[in-house]
Amino acid sequence: MTTSRDFQRARSPEAKLVREAAILDAARRLGAERGIREVTLTDIAEAVGMHKSAMLRYFETREEIFLRLTAEGWRDWAPALAERLRAIEQPAPDAVAAAFAGTLAARPMFCDLLAQTPLNLERNVSVEKVREFKLTTGAGLGQIVPAVRAALPGLTEQDGVDLVAASTSMAGTFHQIATPGPEVAALYRSDPRFAHALVDVEPRLVRILGAMLRGLAGERAGSA
Amino acid sequence: MTTSRDFQRARSPEAKLVREAAILDAARRLGAERGIREVTLTDIAEAVGMHKSAMLRYFETREEIFLRLTAEGWRDWAPALAERLRAIEQPAPDAVAAAFAGTLAARPMFCDLLAQTPLNLERNVSVEKVREFKLTTGAGLGQIVPAVRAALPGLTEQDGVDLVAASTSMAGTFHQIATPGPEVAALYRSDPRFAHALVDVEPRLVRILGAMLRGLAGERAGSA
Repeated sequence: MTTSRDFQRARSPEAKLVREAAILDAARRLGAERGIREVTLTDIAEAVGMHKSAMLRYFETREEIFLRLTAEGWRDWAPALAERLRAIEQPAPDAVAAAFAGTLAARPMFCDLLAQTPLNLERNVSVEKVREFKLTTGAGLGQIVPAVRAALPGLTEQDGVDLVAASTSMAGTFHQIATPGPEVAALYRSDPRFAHALVDVEPRLVRILGAMLRGLAGERAGSA
Repeated sequence: MTTSRDFQRARSPEAKLVREAAILDAARRLGAERGIREVTLTDIAEAVGMHKSAMLRYFETREEIFLRLTAEGWRDWAPALAERLRAIEQPAPDAVAAAFAGTLAARPMFCDLLAQTPLNLERNVSVEKVREFKLTTGAGLGQIVPAVRAALPGLTEQDGVDLVAASTSMAGTFHQIATPGPEVAALYRSDPRFAHALVDVEPRLVRILGAMLRGLAGERAGSA
């Protein structure tokens, strides 16, 4: 663990970046361990060995830290998904659905952040930070949508945007439903009346996105 | 506004129910006015004219109050949707999609609550309250899924459950994205690079659920 002393003077831009990276590292580690909702600003300050008041010189709020991690998540996920889509040789809705579901399910902390973003993270930061974040998601769409349209010719730009919106909103929500606390998880397994509450994120995404893409592909082929 | 005096003694079960209803009414009114996230336990206590400590004898937490309103939302939405599905005369995926999208978009506070449920509301209440809530959502599924399968013969039970999961998770997330604060809303309208951040809940749900249902209906017909 880094001590407060190490962070006493960071007047150069480079030193500032080093501190920011240390704060983001601590938030990322704690978020992955216990879920975003359980991580407070105080937890991050303690993990990074800074006083909370000093940390607020680098990030306005707890939400800004996690919004930065969400942007980082988009910059990781979008090119990984685009690459997987480009590897699809024959137009196949199910292969596109599997690429979305597989790359999202492999990134559980990103799914956690996706659900937190519109509810919490975009609400407690300045407009300038929302602006930066939306430019990042826009750039992600700019990588994903053309790759979807190359994999399934006939799909429109709007189909691609709808697909990204559907997959990210469901991945976020299903991840939350699939990770209840231990007592609630025990409840769901205790009684067949709660079977509907047990969610396996990836297969459900594959089924729903697969059906959506078969519907879109059928319609576009029919109208072509 | 009711005063604290009116609530001084509520020893009979009937009086307890009256107080509970008054608390739920206040929470519903405040939630509809300003969005669930902005309503604190103190706000509800003030609106209902009770001390916060007295209110905690009726509800364990703020989240329990809103989880009760979410259950009430399911008991309102499920039969309304089932009735609309039963009125569909010819099997038509788009009519089923329009029934889901229309009944959800007409209930903005329910959409707000749907997004809050797995992130917040189910986390800060007792297991017993989650259990009651899940029985309510299970009963809702029991009304909706058979009506979907009657409207689109060939769909499986799992197709119906997936459709409810897809529609409720997207309605919740899209509602949050569609209702940013005023400064962020102005940002989105200021620059075409943010066009992807502008969401119109109902048309987007119609497009996505319509494609999903055309895909499912096509597949089930093909395998029949």
